[in-house]
Amino acid sequence: MQHGDYPHWSRDTIRYGDTDRQGHVNNAVFSTFLETGRVQFLMNSGRPIRAPGTNFVIARLVLDFKAEMLWPGEASIGTRVKSIGRSSFTLEQIVMQGDTVTAAGETVMVMVDESTRKSCPLPEASIAALKEMQVAP
Amino acid sequence: MQHGDYPHWSRDTIRYGDTDRQGHVNNAVFSTFLETGRVQFLMNSGRPIRAPGTNFVIARLVLDFKAEMLWPGEASIGTRVKSIGRSSFTLEQIVMQGDTVTAAGETVMVMVDESTRKSCPLPEASIAALKEMQVAP
Amino acid sequence: MQHGDYPHWSRDTIRYGDTDRQGHVNNAVFSTFLETGRVQFLMNSGRPIRAPGTNFVIARLVLDFKAEMLWPGEASIGTRVKSIGRSSFTLEQIVMQGDTVTAAGETVMVMVDESTRKSCPLPEASIAALKEMQVAP
Amino acid sequence: MQHGDYPHWSRDTIRYGDTDRQGHVNNAVFSTFLETGRVQFLMNSGRPIRAPGTNFVIARLVLDFKAEMLWPGEASIGTRVKSIGRSSFTLEQIVMQGDTVTAAGETVMVMVDESTRKSCPLPEASIAALKEMQVAP
Repeated sequence: MQHGDYPHWSRDTIRYGDTDRQGHVNNAVFSTFLETGRVQFLMNSGRPIRAPGTNFVIARLVLDFKAEMLWPGEASIGTRVKSIGRSSFTLEQIVMQGDTVTAAGETVMVMVDESTRKSCPLPEASIAALKEMQVAP
Repeated sequence: MQHGDYPHWSRDTIRYGDTDRQGHVNNAVFSTFLETGRVQFLMNSGRPIRAPGTNFVIARLVLDFKAEMLWPGEASIGTRVKSIGRSSFTLEQIVMQGDTVTAAGETVMVMVDESTRKSCPLPEASIAALKEMQVAP
Repeated sequence: MQHGDYPHWSRDTIRYGDTDRQGHVNNAVFSTFLETGRVQFLMNSGRPIRAPGTNFVIARLVLDFKAEMLWPGEASIGTRVKSIGRSSFTLEQIVMQGDTVTAAGETVMVMVDESTRKSCPLPEASIAALKEMQVAP
Repeated sequence: MQHGDYPHWSRDTIRYGDTDRQGHVNNAVFSTFLETGRVQFLMNSGRPIRAPGTNFVIARLVLDFKAEMLWPGEASIGTRVKSIGRSSFTLEQIVMQGDTVTAAGETVMVMVDESTRKSCPLPEASIAALKEMQVAP
């Protein structure tokens, strides 16, 4: 795992209440960490991924749990674009605590028209912005 | 504690992820249980507490923790009106798991005008509806 | 979708705080609903799935989002066994609000020895209990 | 509000899922932010507040909501000791987003013996450590 493999990194604080009675971070919080990376990537990265009048809907989430996470600490979330379709694209993410990869995730995001709430084709600008976040294999 | 002391009861499911590393339900979830009772009381009880064009804002929350809550199980939340002011009112609530009172809470709610986002006087209909939920001492 | 397709059903309360600024239930809460069904299925169904001295660890989670969920309401979670391996098994789940299937999920669970924290073979009794929760195609 | 009024500061990340359908951070998350400051203050500040074989239990929580919090952003939590009793003490906290105080809180914490689960007197070392975190009026 090299940091350079993911062009976008976000951070989140591991909360005391994120733990459950097993003593570690509850597995549903891993979905939250993926979201932290994803929304920052899509909405706050300064790139014109989202077109006016559109929004993103999550269609599929795959999470592979690699190691438990413990309080206290921080989560680092790496995000990159895996593939780009007509109206959807797939993100690849990893979650780390310190030097340990704790999870790997994949999410399929669909662009929807905010008025019709139906999927719509990704505009050129979005595709160009997403391509920059793709990492060559 | 008699159930009749609270005219409105709500239920919530205690979730596995509500627990924390101490093995019991995390204290912040108690605020969520109060909210479960409060929003159902204010918005879904069939009473015209909320006037069109207005909303409720929470101004103050007091929580006295009485006993720990454990997964699995259910939370029952009793709600009643303690006092009614000009643009605000105070709710009294208790949280129970089975026969055990686990917390007592008090919340001050303010009615705000949705357009100005400022507090506004409670209309007659709201006051009448709130009075019905008041329990004589 | 027939209820009979899933031998085990759990319920959870949709909380006001489960919603996010998009107005619907936040996607990470869907993982929580899967967990609600899973832990009840594995730990509280009266079946001897878990052997003494062992625990279950989630290795993989796949979630297909079908429809948004809205507050207020209830989540119903159907759970069944898809396949059984040497030390792991796969659960298939659906999440419903009313008559609408809002998500379909798959989780790979691994049995671990509590002392060594390593995976261990599923005992006969666990396999028998899991087989009863398998639905013939 | 001067930062020097609070000797201990913690930070937490405002998460997308912290928001609710009203568009702002859900009120129950404010309890979580107080907890973030409190547990770091009590357990990770390098001060010997907690004695071996003891733990802290929250007895009372008071929260005054001052302003709404919005995603994205960070929460800063200031914590200080208000008063020290025989087996309990009271913390005063504020929550800020940027330069805005969004909430003020007070929590009564009780030291309990981990074996008996009953309250026990604060040892000298704990009292001394707490006194250092008290701010003269």
